[in-house]
Amino acid sequence: MHTEQPIDLVTKASLLHDYWSPRVLAEVNDYQVKIARMKGEFVWHRHEHTDELFLLLEGQLDMEIRDEAGDITTTTLWPGQLFVVGKNIEHRPVVPTEAVAIIIEPRGVVNTGDADSDLRAKNDVWL
Amino acid sequence: MHTEQPIDLVTKASLLHDYWSPRVLAEVNDYQVKIARMKGEFVWHRHEHTDELFLLLEGQLDMEIRDEAGDITTTTLWPGQLFVVGKNIEHRPVVPTEAVAIIIEPRGVVNTGDADSDLRAKNDVWL
Repeated sequence: MHTEQPIDLVTKASLLHDYWSPRVLAEVNDYQVKIARMKGEFVWHRHEHTDELFLLLEGQLDMEIRDEAGDITTTTLWPGQLFVVGKNIEHRPVVPTEAVAIIIEPRGVVNTGDADSDLRAKNDVWL
Repeated sequence: MHTEQPIDLVTKASLLHDYWSPRVLAEVNDYQVKIARMKGEFVWHRHEHTDELFLLLEGQLDMEIRDEAGDITTTTLWPGQLFVVGKNIEHRPVVPTEAVAIIIEPRGVVNTGDADSDLRAKNDVWL
């Protein structure tokens, strides 16, 4: 979807106060660029049909990955760093203080994936 | 494609010295995240089958868009700003000094689109 004006990420971040409620900023064909403010522990989940890209803008994000054996590895992201969680990989974002990230994935992906959780956000809300 | 380590954009930019030669940093399903260093005027072109996202990391990028009537509008991007050029829209990046941008689009997209140009870069080169 063609953009008429530049989308300023710092400005968009300043407008987003809700935690764990991704908002759509732009679309590239059927992919969406979302922004999310995060704080605390999210729920363990996986996206069975898609990879998910995180680009950290503010704060610190500890991405926990749990393998089939149940072993957990943690990858810490700082601003300006990106990370792709592979399709069907169980993961949980943990944010010690507060963080803002860009998320890129196909349109229609639910933030909580396969998890049954109150943290499930309304999809396709634009900012 | 799952990422093993965080990908630091500033570090990646420092490793890229060639102009107009996008390098792949990551993949999200069949989409690629590329980084490109730019200087001067690129060639007018369009991508007939895909949108193209630009996120500016360094410098200034003047994105020129030419409509069907031949009228040109220019959108200036600064670091931290993103812009999506719509499918089949004729465009030309112009960079007064030097700039670095992230580009996101499906795997296989050629930088010069439909243009016959010496600026056509080898595709699918990773950094």
